[in-house]
Amino acid sequence: MPEILKTREYLAQQIRQRKTVLTIGLDTDSTKLPSIVNHDVLAFNKAIIDATHDLCIAYKLNFAFYESLGAKGWDILEKTIQLIPSTHLIIADAKRGDIGNTSEMYAKAIYDLLGCDAITVSPYMGSDSVKPFYRKGKWVIILALTSNEGSSDFQQKKLTGGNKLYEEVMEVTSKWGSADDTMYVLGATHPSEIKLIRNKYPDHFFLVPGIGAQGGDLEAICNAGLNQQGGLLINASRSILYASKGSDFAEKAREEALKLNKSIQQQLIQIFNGD
Amino acid sequence: MPEILKTREYLAQQIRQRKTVLTIGLDTDSTKLPSIVNHDVLAFNKAIIDATHDLCIAYKLNFAFYESLGAKGWDILEKTIQLIPSTHLIIADAKRGDIGNTSEMYAKAIYDLLGCDAITVSPYMGSDSVKPFYRKGKWVIILALTSNEGSSDFQQKKLTGGNKLYEEVMEVTSKWGSADDTMYVLGATHPSEIKLIRNKYPDHFFLVPGIGAQGGDLEAICNAGLNQQGGLLINASRSILYASKGSDFAEKAREEALKLNKSIQQQLIQIFNGD
Repeated sequence: MPEILKTREYLAQQIRQRKTVLTIGLDTDSTKLPSIVNHDVLAFNKAIIDATHDLCIAYKLNFAFYESLGAKGWDILEKTIQLIPSTHLIIADAKRGDIGNTSEMYAKAIYDLLGCDAITVSPYMGSDSVKPFYRKGKWVIILALTSNEGSSDFQQKKLTGGNKLYEEVMEVTSKWGSADDTMYVLGATHPSEIKLIRNKYPDHFFLVPGIGAQGGDLEAICNAGLNQQGGLLINASRSILYASKGSDFAEKAREEALKLNKSIQQQLIQIFNGD
Repeated sequence: MPEILKTREYLAQQIRQRKTVLTIGLDTDSTKLPSIVNHDVLAFNKAIIDATHDLCIAYKLNFAFYESLGAKGWDILEKTIQLIPSTHLIIADAKRGDIGNTSEMYAKAIYDLLGCDAITVSPYMGSDSVKPFYRKGKWVIILALTSNEGSSDFQQKKLTGGNKLYEEVMEVTSKWGSADDTMYVLGATHPSEIKLIRNKYPDHFFLVPGIGAQGGDLEAICNAGLNQQGGLLINASRSILYASKGSDFAEKAREEALKLNKSIQQQLIQIFNGD
C-alpha cells in the first residue's frame, strides 16, 4: 500500500469530504473499559475505530496510557496504529523534546517504527530539541497554550519583549517550519485567545484538546478557529471512549461523535458556503 | 528485598561513602555497540553496570533509546533496571509532562511498573502537569537550564518580573516541593549560572548532564555546584559507554569513570575536609 502523505491540502480535502475536524483521542485506560471487552485494550480500540472512523479525520494516541502497561502496552500501541485507516492522520501525543541526538531517537520510534504522521512536542528545550522531528510529510505539533489550569504558571507569563511565553513560542517556532509542517496545541479552554491567534496565523492547523471532560466549548472553538481549510483538529477522548460502560459502548461512542459532528458541521458548512 | 528509599540523606551518605557524584547515563544506542555484544543492548548494559556500579551513585536511563526499539526496547528497559543494584538511584530520563490524568499514567509507568526512583519532567505545562510525579521517596527532576544550544531560545528569555524563564521555573516549582523531593536539570555548559543558582538554592540536588560529548567542564561544575551533601549528580553517557568499540569496552568504560571520579574526588574531599 503506497503511503499517503498527509499534506495540508490533503487534510483540507478530507475535512471537506467528511465535513468534520473531529479527532478522536485513544487515551485508553485499561481500568475503565466496559466489562464486555475483558480488559482487552486492543479489542476496545478496534471497536472504537470501527465505529467512528467515518466520523473523524484523525486519531490521537496518548502514549502515557500505553506506557503504563509496559512492553505489552507498546505492542498494543503498534497494533492499534495498524488498525487505523491509512486515510486518517495519526498523531503521537507523546509531548517529547530532548537534546538533538535524543529527539532523533524519539523521531525514529514514532515515525519509522510506529508509522505515525505527527507528534506533539514540548518547546521548552528550544530549536535543537524540536528540529529533529521535522520530516517530509510529517507534522510537528508544538505545545503553545494548553488546556489545563497549569497553563497560567509559565505559558501565560509575559516576557520583556511584550509577548506572553506561548506567543513567543509561536512566533519563534513558526520560523522553524511553516503552516505545511507545523501545528500548535491550543486548549479548548481558551477560545478568545484562539480567535486572536487565528488572526495572526491564518493558515496553520491547531490541535485543540479540552472539549468534553475538560469543559471547553465546542461552538466557541469552531467560531474562533475554523478557517477555509478547516484549520482545526478538535480532539475528544473520554466523552467518546467512555460514553457507555455497557456492551453498547461502540454504538454510544458513535452517537457521541455524531453529536459533536453536528455542532462542527453547522459551522464548517457556513465557512464552505462562504467560498 | 525491602525497598530502599533514596532520601536526600541517603544520597549524601552514598556520595560520602563512594566519594563521587557520578551518574552514568545508559543512552544505549543499539547501532553503536561493540561488535562483540552482537547488538544485544541488555548484555551491553549489564557489562557496563557490572564494570561501573562501585564508581557511581546513580544510573540515568534515556527512554528515547529504548523506545526506538519498540516493545522489545521497553522490555530491555525493564530488565536493565532490574540489573541496577538497589543501592543506586535510578533516574528515568523521560522528560514527561502532560495534563493531570496523563501525567498520572506516566508516573504509574515509571514508578510502579519500572521501579524508577526519579523522573525528569518538563515544566512547560505547569503545576498540574508536574504534581502527579510527587510521591513519597521519589524525586521529581525539573528541566530548568538545559545543556543544549536551544536553551537560549526560551529558557533564558527574560520575564517582565525580572527573572529569566528558567529562574522563574525554579522559583515557582521550588514551592511545589522541597529540596527533599525536587531536583533541577542544569546543563554543564552553564557553570557560572550554576554558581549563582547554588547560592540561591543551597540544599537542592542538581542533575548536571553535558560533560564529555557536549563539552561541559567537569572541574568548573564541581567548583560551582558541590555542597556539603554533594548536591550534584553529574551525568556522563557517551564518553563512558563508547570509550572503546573493542572487546575491552567495559574495561575502558571503567577507566573513563575512574578518570572522571579522580577530578570529582579532588573537589569533594576538599569540601568534606572542610566539615
